[in-house]
Amino acid sequence: MSELKGREKTSSGFYVTKEAPISTDNPIKTPSVPAPDILRCAYMEIVVTDLAKSREFYVDVLGLTVTEEDENTIYLRSLEEFIHHNLVLRKGPVAAVAAFSYRVRTPEDIDKAVAFYTELGCRVERRKEGFVKGIGDSVRVEDPLGFPFEFFYEVEHVERLAWRYDLYTPGALVRLDHFNQVTPDVPRAVRHYQDLGFRVTEDIQDEDGTVYAAWLRAKPTVHDTAATGGDGPRMHHVAFSTHEKHNILAICDKLGALRLSDKIERGPGRHGVSNAFYLYLRDPDGHRVEIYTQDYYTGDPDNPVVTWDVHDNQRRDWWGNPVVPSWYTDASRVLDLDGNLQPIVARTDESEMAVTIGADGFSYTRDDEGEKGFKLGNTL
Amino acid sequence: MSELKGREKTSSGFYVTKEAPISTDNPIKTPSVPAPDILRCAYMEIVVTDLAKSREFYVDVLGLTVTEEDENTIYLRSLEEFIHHNLVLRKGPVAAVAAFSYRVRTPEDIDKAVAFYTELGCRVERRKEGFVKGIGDSVRVEDPLGFPFEFFYEVEHVERLAWRYDLYTPGALVRLDHFNQVTPDVPRAVRHYQDLGFRVTEDIQDEDGTVYAAWLRAKPTVHDTAATGGDGPRMHHVAFSTHEKHNILAICDKLGALRLSDKIERGPGRHGVSNAFYLYLRDPDGHRVEIYTQDYYTGDPDNPVVTWDVHDNQRRDWWGNPVVPSWYTDASRVLDLDGNLQPIVARTDESEMAVTIGADGFSYTRDDEGEKGFKLGNTL
Amino acid sequence: MSELKGREKTSSGFYVTKEAPISTDNPIKTPSVPAPDILRCAYMEIVVTDLAKSREFYVDVLGLTVTEEDENTIYLRSLEEFIHHNLVLRKGPVAAVAAFSYRVRTPEDIDKAVAFYTELGCRVERRKEGFVKGIGDSVRVEDPLGFPFEFFYEVEHVERLAWRYDLYTPGALVRLDHFNQVTPDVPRAVRHYQDLGFRVTEDIQDEDGTVYAAWLRAKPTVHDTAATGGDGPRMHHVAFSTHEKHNILAICDKLGALRLSDKIERGPGRHGVSNAFYLYLRDPDGHRVEIYTQDYYTGDPDNPVVTWDVHDNQRRDWWGNPVVPSWYTDASRVLDLDGNLQPIVARTDESEMAVTIGADGFSYTRDDEGEKGFKLGNTL
Amino acid sequence: MSELKGREKTSSGFYVTKEAPISTDNPIKTPSVPAPDILRCAYMEIVVTDLAKSREFYVDVLGLTVTEEDENTIYLRSLEEFIHHNLVLRKGPVAAVAAFSYRVRTPEDIDKAVAFYTELGCRVERRKEGFVKGIGDSVRVEDPLGFPFEFFYEVEHVERLAWRYDLYTPGALVRLDHFNQVTPDVPRAVRHYQDLGFRVTEDIQDEDGTVYAAWLRAKPTVHDTAATGGDGPRMHHVAFSTHEKHNILAICDKLGALRLSDKIERGPGRHGVSNAFYLYLRDPDGHRVEIYTQDYYTGDPDNPVVTWDVHDNQRRDWWGNPVVPSWYTDASRVLDLDGNLQPIVARTDESEMAVTIGADGFSYTRDDEGEKGFKLGNTL
Repeated sequence: MSELKGREKTSSGFYVTKEAPISTDNPIKTPSVPAPDILRCAYMEIVVTDLAKSREFYVDVLGLTVTEEDENTIYLRSLEEFIHHNLVLRKGPVAAVAAFSYRVRTPEDIDKAVAFYTELGCRVERRKEGFVKGIGDSVRVEDPLGFPFEFFYEVEHVERLAWRYDLYTPGALVRLDHFNQVTPDVPRAVRHYQDLGFRVTEDIQDEDGTVYAAWLRAKPTVHDTAATGGDGPRMHHVAFSTHEKHNILAICDKLGALRLSDKIERGPGRHGVSNAFYLYLRDPDGHRVEIYTQDYYTGDPDNPVVTWDVHDNQRRDWWGNPVVPSWYTDASRVLDLDGNLQPIVARTDESEMAVTIGADGFSYTRDDEGEKGFKLGNTL
Repeated sequence: MSELKGREKTSSGFYVTKEAPISTDNPIKTPSVPAPDILRCAYMEIVVTDLAKSREFYVDVLGLTVTEEDENTIYLRSLEEFIHHNLVLRKGPVAAVAAFSYRVRTPEDIDKAVAFYTELGCRVERRKEGFVKGIGDSVRVEDPLGFPFEFFYEVEHVERLAWRYDLYTPGALVRLDHFNQVTPDVPRAVRHYQDLGFRVTEDIQDEDGTVYAAWLRAKPTVHDTAATGGDGPRMHHVAFSTHEKHNILAICDKLGALRLSDKIERGPGRHGVSNAFYLYLRDPDGHRVEIYTQDYYTGDPDNPVVTWDVHDNQRRDWWGNPVVPSWYTDASRVLDLDGNLQPIVARTDESEMAVTIGADGFSYTRDDEGEKGFKLGNTL
Repeated sequence: MSELKGREKTSSGFYVTKEAPISTDNPIKTPSVPAPDILRCAYMEIVVTDLAKSREFYVDVLGLTVTEEDENTIYLRSLEEFIHHNLVLRKGPVAAVAAFSYRVRTPEDIDKAVAFYTELGCRVERRKEGFVKGIGDSVRVEDPLGFPFEFFYEVEHVERLAWRYDLYTPGALVRLDHFNQVTPDVPRAVRHYQDLGFRVTEDIQDEDGTVYAAWLRAKPTVHDTAATGGDGPRMHHVAFSTHEKHNILAICDKLGALRLSDKIERGPGRHGVSNAFYLYLRDPDGHRVEIYTQDYYTGDPDNPVVTWDVHDNQRRDWWGNPVVPSWYTDASRVLDLDGNLQPIVARTDESEMAVTIGADGFSYTRDDEGEKGFKLGNTL
Repeated sequence: MSELKGREKTSSGFYVTKEAPISTDNPIKTPSVPAPDILRCAYMEIVVTDLAKSREFYVDVLGLTVTEEDENTIYLRSLEEFIHHNLVLRKGPVAAVAAFSYRVRTPEDIDKAVAFYTELGCRVERRKEGFVKGIGDSVRVEDPLGFPFEFFYEVEHVERLAWRYDLYTPGALVRLDHFNQVTPDVPRAVRHYQDLGFRVTEDIQDEDGTVYAAWLRAKPTVHDTAATGGDGPRMHHVAFSTHEKHNILAICDKLGALRLSDKIERGPGRHGVSNAFYLYLRDPDGHRVEIYTQDYYTGDPDNPVVTWDVHDNQRRDWWGNPVVPSWYTDASRVLDLDGNLQPIVARTDESEMAVTIGADGFSYTRDDEGEKGFKLGNTL
């Protein structure tokens, strides 16, 4: 992530640079101690208000595998997973996110996480027996941006069902791919998450240097999490992968057959950012779930950072299809370690929706033609 | 096609009946002579204003095969075709459609077509040498609805390139599938086309008996042509088939890469009507081209007719994604046999766009919940 | 079907001609009365020795829909079907085929079928109430080649489940596509089936005029049935369609997961003949089932007939993968109208397996290189 | 990799364990210095005898992108690659492999590689300017198993063409996935490559402890390289990825259309090992190229190691299709640093082909049924 100005475009219409130090007015302190070594996003714990309805959505419709369940909690995993779960549904009075949980490389990384966040003055809670079933020694923190992050290494292994094609549905979900977080100040968030060891792979900017969103990875895909500019802390979405694009279309077809097509919020389509094929759904509580497939390898240290112009109409949908307003405005609240809703801080930078959809916004398909190339969807 | 009232719904949310006589106040006379035996829609001749630009779109982008071309005309075919062409691009001053051309079963069916339309008082012109290259004895008529229809049997055979996978692109078009015509009075059109031998496969109605569109077939697919309610005669679209859904997605991806995503008007998506996967593009003159795959067999005489409620939000897109207004309002003019634009007659029945998108319209995803199930797209 | 000699090859390596009268030494008489108007292959009735095991294969593994069942019989259909069934499994002491059943255009075509076969001296049995559930007035015959053919028009309609994506499996079967019959003298069979109204679409010959197999259609696909040279009458296979190639791969994956991979006899692969993607399975009694997708439209009367050289290594698998011997040698016995096994007549013409796999056989990939281009599989 | 005996099977029919120290009679010394930190397999340099023919195969048929070329050398890359090349074709008198090249994490890792192999007594050659175009400071070694390994960090960046869908073919290759090496003593090789930092993901063993093959990864896929038991050092294959399975089928279809189906050696099919979809081709010199898609994430340190019984008929093809003998016997010679052929050491352990295909071998599909479940292919 570095400035858009003065760069050369690639033949695909975006800009490529080396990852660079983030300039931000109001940086979070860089701890003196080393960050934990994060392997990957591992699971999300979400609070749902009607466990039966959520089970229907995640198990009967989406086909996630139940590892374990009781009257208050359901532990779900994807077909290629060998750790206990990728998603925990917990019954509660208010829909929210209780934890963004990352797996670290070694048991000792939990100690590092404790030290890292303690130095930052964050609230930190460690439980040797874990916060949820299937997970051992873990730490949960309220991170400097207000998100409930968890780190763990110890985990119960379960059977990887990758070869169990008798269990596959047409829309089979095979992996947890990433999280996406809404936060008011994107450069501030990115700089902090770089301190935590994440690497930037792509971002959206304008010519004035406003950053609208950035994508951050631990494992060598486009992201394990992303920072989306908006009032926050909130959870924008959690994403699962399929093997192929037709699997995603099959989920749409099934939702149609079940007369649940109103669960489809946006897509399916091809992302500009990440080059992945996508679909956004809303669960019974409005939690947003992305279904995602086929981004690219990003594991080299000098992996080129892709920057998109916020006015490029193909940045969020490569086919120029419109982003619906709810996708920009809606997101799930997150909980503090006591289970209370974190207060929301408003974004003060420009909003991506406003600059691209609103009355004063504009977009282009071919930027040499100015505003002429825009599609109807932009004026939604 | 028969009345929606009092029917039982299928588990998929639409109604099924036998094909029935159409009731219409202002029917076109049924000729006393037999209709020609139509095999299938075979080609469309369209007038384009910039032949080079159109060639780029149909050949370089969509990958149709050039059978033959000169400075004024390009003859194109799909990969599985063995007749000379499925599309003729002819250079002209005004973008329009010169012919909807159908192949008939025998040379004698041309005589039948002449007699059929002569009895109807239509203008009829027969040319033994054909109107375009590659086609022999043919007749063109201005049909009672104002459309320039052609019928032919004699045709030059060319190589069917179905096995030539070295020529396939990721978005390979393998067949011409159907035409779609805009006409003000749908039941009147349907009744006439039934006289011509077409069979109804699906339609869209409301509870007051207004018919918004109907699908008509000669070959045993969902349609060879369709009657879409609106100011007409106009050509709504011409459709080509791919083998699989990913081929259609590949066309979108390529348009994005060429920074031509604004050529995508609607989709990709799953139709309710026809159950096919679809995409609508606009060519450089605004002629609409559908890319289409995987409808169902309709060849039995008692094939069940599917009727959709116009307020069913999944009728035009099974996933409930919105139909953009331009898809309802825009269409290509058609020519008379002198090459002049046919005058337009306005639709007087209710407009599908108005009843489903406009201020007074409403739609449902689950009709037992009334208006609650609608999606944002409906309020576009 | 006409002679291979002296023809010009297409760029794909096969020959194309017009359909021509068949020359055969020992023709079956052409009846003086008109043949029934056949719409399509509609269902096959097979006798299975263990109904529970067969149910597991066709319902649990392949996912066919049970329309109706009792302790002796199971009626199955594909997802896009609206007639009562496409396959009847009947419990019996010896695995065999009881009926190849075709739907005709009108109730009167049953009378025509009776007259047609009566003139041929065949055994004919008509039942107004049908031979199986769901079917009305029908006639069964022992045809001149010894096959039990059935013709019917009256049938119970059931729900077409095409839109019920909640019921789809990854390997969803959507249509019955065709039958395939083993018979000693292919030209004799083809000539007779042309009398019955079938049209030839493709065949396999050698330069001496031996015909090894031919494909025959009623509906406009490559076939409703085929005549495969061999000891007969026997049933080579019954074929169901999927929408896409990945559906066929999913069936293989599922059979692997169930440790039933030995049910896969041949494929998956791309046929040369028909250009379709295919897979051959063997059911618990050894009845062969093909899974098939994406052949081409053949409905024009002058549809080019494709002739393959028996020595073209890509005729049966476009990728040159070997045909296993069992595919050539094994087939199901057929029953007479009393339910007894029809006696087998041996083929006297050359066997395709012998001329292409055996010690004296040869094949080519590029025929200008003689025998050099062959693949290992040929020497299996 | 640890012993097969006494383990519990998973429901998929293979065994799962933790990665364990390898027991081998004749280990290669573990160096006292740290190994270089390997990111991924990056490119292979192969010697071809007819550069024009090889260009036709890799560029015209497979669609790899030419980064740069001259009369002796062609530099090729896949569509998602941003480093200069993934494959170097160099003209030479004898077909062979000149380098298996790995990218390391930092420039300093080159120093580490030099020290590592120097301590092992291997021949080591470092070139600051690189051995081929596009690559900077690198080291090539003759590794203890006789393979020419290269390590580099510095590399010229080129445009990642992932978004350039206008350049995609139906069989588009998007990534280099892995190498595969033939070596006589698999446990000895595995133990050494673990010293070099690779992690075992899967292997094939028998009950007597003979190891037939093992898969080793740097990046978190199933492998960056594999050790296949056989006379070595030889190169078994180099593998490129596609996005979807249909892309692999499209390559087969195209080879058929070009009458090059004899380039297909094995597949397409689903691997048991890796769970990936695969195809093996042979280039004009007989170098084997695999096309591969959709294995699983292996990046966690405790990723379960999968062990397959060599007698499990689904281990190499999940559908039980036969492995052709040439796939076991043929492989490419490798060069020493002077460009001479490395001498071959014969395997003394049992051969996988012999124990599974040969007269004394046996396989099973369902091991509780003993030899009954085998497929014809095994007796090839």
